[in-house]
Amino acid sequence: MNIRIGQGIDFHQLVEGRELWIGGVKIDHTKGALGHSDADVLLHAVCDAFLGAACLGDIGTHFPDTDAQYKNIDSKILLQRTVDLIKKESYTIVNIDSTLCLEKPKIKPYVAQMQSTIANLCGLAPNDVSIKATTTEKMGFVGREEGLVAYATVLLQRF
Amino acid sequence: MNIRIGQGIDFHQLVEGRELWIGGVKIDHTKGALGHSDADVLLHAVCDAFLGAACLGDIGTHFPDTDAQYKNIDSKILLQRTVDLIKKESYTIVNIDSTLCLEKPKIKPYVAQMQSTIANLCGLAPNDVSIKATTTEKMGFVGREEGLVAYATVLLQRF
Amino acid sequence: MNIRIGQGIDFHQLVEGRELWIGGVKIDHTKGALGHSDADVLLHAVCDAFLGAACLGDIGTHFPDTDAQYKNIDSKILLQRTVDLIKKESYTIVNIDSTLCLEKPKIKPYVAQMQSTIANLCGLAPNDVSIKATTTEKMGFVGREEGLVAYATVLLQRF
Repeated sequence: MNIRIGQGIDFHQLVEGRELWIGGVKIDHTKGALGHSDADVLLHAVCDAFLGAACLGDIGTHFPDTDAQYKNIDSKILLQRTVDLIKKESYTIVNIDSTLCLEKPKIKPYVAQMQSTIANLCGLAPNDVSIKATTTEKMGFVGREEGLVAYATVLLQRF
Repeated sequence: MNIRIGQGIDFHQLVEGRELWIGGVKIDHTKGALGHSDADVLLHAVCDAFLGAACLGDIGTHFPDTDAQYKNIDSKILLQRTVDLIKKESYTIVNIDSTLCLEKPKIKPYVAQMQSTIANLCGLAPNDVSIKATTTEKMGFVGREEGLVAYATVLLQRF
Repeated sequence: MNIRIGQGIDFHQLVEGRELWIGGVKIDHTKGALGHSDADVLLHAVCDAFLGAACLGDIGTHFPDTDAQYKNIDSKILLQRTVDLIKKESYTIVNIDSTLCLEKPKIKPYVAQMQSTIANLCGLAPNDVSIKATTTEKMGFVGREEGLVAYATVLLQRF
């Protein structure tokens, strides 16, 4: 058995006039995440963790933010394509753990829907997709509500 | 064998007039960590990593900082309860690695005591509990000594 | 089989008048990383991840930045010594995943050379060494180009 670790980190600014998508779910908030795609910080971190574990580059390699075809794209499509890439390398996903750092809003009401959305795209059970959240205690750019960060770690295996 | 990865991140402000508890040990310092509990950034990160690996929510789900029963609580109790939760799911702990980001003070003199404290609570050998430390080279809120951050990663297994 | 997880995080300021070394490779840029050694943020994070997984302390324990013998040292030497330390404990390296957070310059043109440099030092194939990169979307000290951060995660095993 070949087991491999991967990690992903993603950052987005929070600005007025944009929708806030996290974990494939639309969040009700006064600000949204700025980016070339839908700027889903959690799905991007998960994509990067998968690509890292499989040593296939990073999200910028596969889905460059200078490419018009990814303008405003639903990041669920990017995650689906990433899952296809690692499956082509014969990897299966063991589990995903993740942490969202954001000051507001509370994402707890959305976590179950995020889990099932990601699990469906990855061919996992919701119980294999963990999503945690924390504030940064009002410190830094997250604490000032200027942005948000997602950290993801994954295990892949290949038989 | 079922092996799972977990990660935890925790942030606390450093303020005057509070005690500084890290890794279950009281640290001699001019500032302490602000929080509802004793604000032990390392134990909180480890709790979150365990909960994430077992997909049992996060520390805020189990020990909400709006609940009076956790006011000023010793975080060793929270870690003990978290270990009980993952054991109930038949998980055993493989190892813990962690990094503390803080500008001051040097925590090296306390590391061995932190390791044995955490190891005892988790039913591990001290050699299965790694605690590392770094400054952020005077940058950001950690560099300005406004706060501290802990990162933990863990492996759990289930037979 | 004994499998263990490790993580490392490293921070350096970016200043004029220094060379920029990342992943053992010299990067063409107007600023360089400030530190006692050559301040290679990625190699330091990888060293810390190995030491953490093997529970052998941290990079500051083994190569203190107060020790004149490490002044301006090539961090490839530090990584080589770290690999020797974990091999002495009978560990073999499974894989490395890492993320560089820096605003500029683009490190993509250097990634293949970094991978083969690290792989050679670790006795791995380049395909076992993943290096990803992201900006922090102009936020924080990384976004202001005051510094850079590297995160590394590793798996080790022992038979």
